[in-house]
Amino acid sequence: MSEDWKTQLSALNERAAFNRWAGIRVVAAQAGEVEIEMPWRGEAGQYSGFLHAALVSGLIDTVCGYAAFTVAGMVLASHVSVNFMAPAVGRSFVARGVVTRAGRRQIFTRADLFAVNDEGARKLVATGETLLMRAEA
Amino acid sequence: MSEDWKTQLSALNERAAFNRWAGIRVVAAQAGEVEIEMPWRGEAGQYSGFLHAALVSGLIDTVCGYAAFTVAGMVLASHVSVNFMAPAVGRSFVARGVVTRAGRRQIFTRADLFAVNDEGARKLVATGETLLMRAEA
Amino acid sequence: MSEDWKTQLSALNERAAFNRWAGIRVVAAQAGEVEIEMPWRGEAGQYSGFLHAALVSGLIDTVCGYAAFTVAGMVLASHVSVNFMAPAVGRSFVARGVVTRAGRRQIFTRADLFAVNDEGARKLVATGETLLMRAEA
Amino acid sequence: MSEDWKTQLSALNERAAFNRWAGIRVVAAQAGEVEIEMPWRGEAGQYSGFLHAALVSGLIDTVCGYAAFTVAGMVLASHVSVNFMAPAVGRSFVARGVVTRAGRRQIFTRADLFAVNDEGARKLVATGETLLMRAEA
Repeated sequence: MSEDWKTQLSALNERAAFNRWAGIRVVAAQAGEVEIEMPWRGEAGQYSGFLHAALVSGLIDTVCGYAAFTVAGMVLASHVSVNFMAPAVGRSFVARGVVTRAGRRQIFTRADLFAVNDEGARKLVATGETLLMRAEA
Repeated sequence: MSEDWKTQLSALNERAAFNRWAGIRVVAAQAGEVEIEMPWRGEAGQYSGFLHAALVSGLIDTVCGYAAFTVAGMVLASHVSVNFMAPAVGRSFVARGVVTRAGRRQIFTRADLFAVNDEGARKLVATGETLLMRAEA
Repeated sequence: MSEDWKTQLSALNERAAFNRWAGIRVVAAQAGEVEIEMPWRGEAGQYSGFLHAALVSGLIDTVCGYAAFTVAGMVLASHVSVNFMAPAVGRSFVARGVVTRAGRRQIFTRADLFAVNDEGARKLVATGETLLMRAEA
Repeated sequence: MSEDWKTQLSALNERAAFNRWAGIRVVAAQAGEVEIEMPWRGEAGQYSGFLHAALVSGLIDTVCGYAAFTVAGMVLASHVSVNFMAPAVGRSFVARGVVTRAGRRQIFTRADLFAVNDEGARKLVATGETLLMRAEA
């Protein structure tokens, strides 16, 4: 089994129509830790023009799933929770997910979401966590 | 103050670019309880062709925010959590949100998400809850 | 298999030293829905004299586990979340838990916690939810 | 205002009857980060003899509240969530909480709970997070 996680996850990512629409890309991946990025686009905004909560939650859910994939293969999310800490305003958004515990049946993960401004500076705008189940054979 | 919540929320909903993209509509609203609907569209899919977790979370977050709006005006979500109970497969998706407690500063809400099949039958596919803060003057 | 859930759950409850210390009793039980009660005691207080968050969470976790037991036998909680809505002040506390979905591997549950005053009136002070796994053979 | 957080938090901790019963002690504290410890005691057990979920949640909630206190003074928890990762079995239990964001009205915190065995080795058994509001003047 290859462990070039970035290549594998990029291929998986391309299979999700919504991820293609949102322009999500896998930017870094190693066992138990993954980073994805999404550029700002107007159609992803909520009524004030910030990134919509659907995308905030979606980026956290996605990166947690990818981090889990590197330790457990195919997984299904059971529960996600997200803390909205600051308005998600930026030129792009970077989510970094890590596995906090990989059990025999369940995988626990945690993620941070950063808004990136025009100068490339990152600001933490949300955190979250996801509980996933290993897919059955 | 008008209490025609459906009209008010529909206008608010139209101001969110992502909600327009997703085709979200307010279908029913009264004080403390709101229902929204979104038709299936291919670009909203994850890698298996089910509704993407971003939309599952986004519909729950959106309907909770609208329910909170009917009791507290402008609000900001602090925390959302979502339980993924079954694959979100349907012709459309209906989210119903209710206020469980409206405090002086915080609003607690809860929502159910149903997938609707070709015959119009509803199946519960996710539940969630959102904690919101009243926006400051 | 007997379905006298109140008797079975009461026996299970007696095996937990903390539940005995706290005076937790099973007051009603049917398939998928259970109610437990705990009398106020001074040692269960936090610094303001309200019921400690440990007990608020513990009652919600316990009643969710019992509700899950009625549909799935032995279970293990993976995740619990609790909303603190009002100070938990009362002569006793009643938690009611329900199963919202029983899957092949996971059980989703939800609970309300009420404070009961000297006149017997109930006030909702917290809500919560628990995700549980079926114990393995 | 003194910033000897360990002394201040220890005094606060002593005012909570449940914390005295449980033997909770503040073992380290600095701005935004606190550690507490609780010895195992039989009355804190669930039916298998592990630490009861009430104590797991209670230690996480307590240490998060203490971490928030160091940056915001008196606070009230609105929401807590806990991931149960492994059976909580040990001679004692150590919870470490950190503030992840301190806003004008809300404080976000995160905590890890470790079981400590007879040799003093720590094992991660739970993680959690708490959202708190600043107490009003």
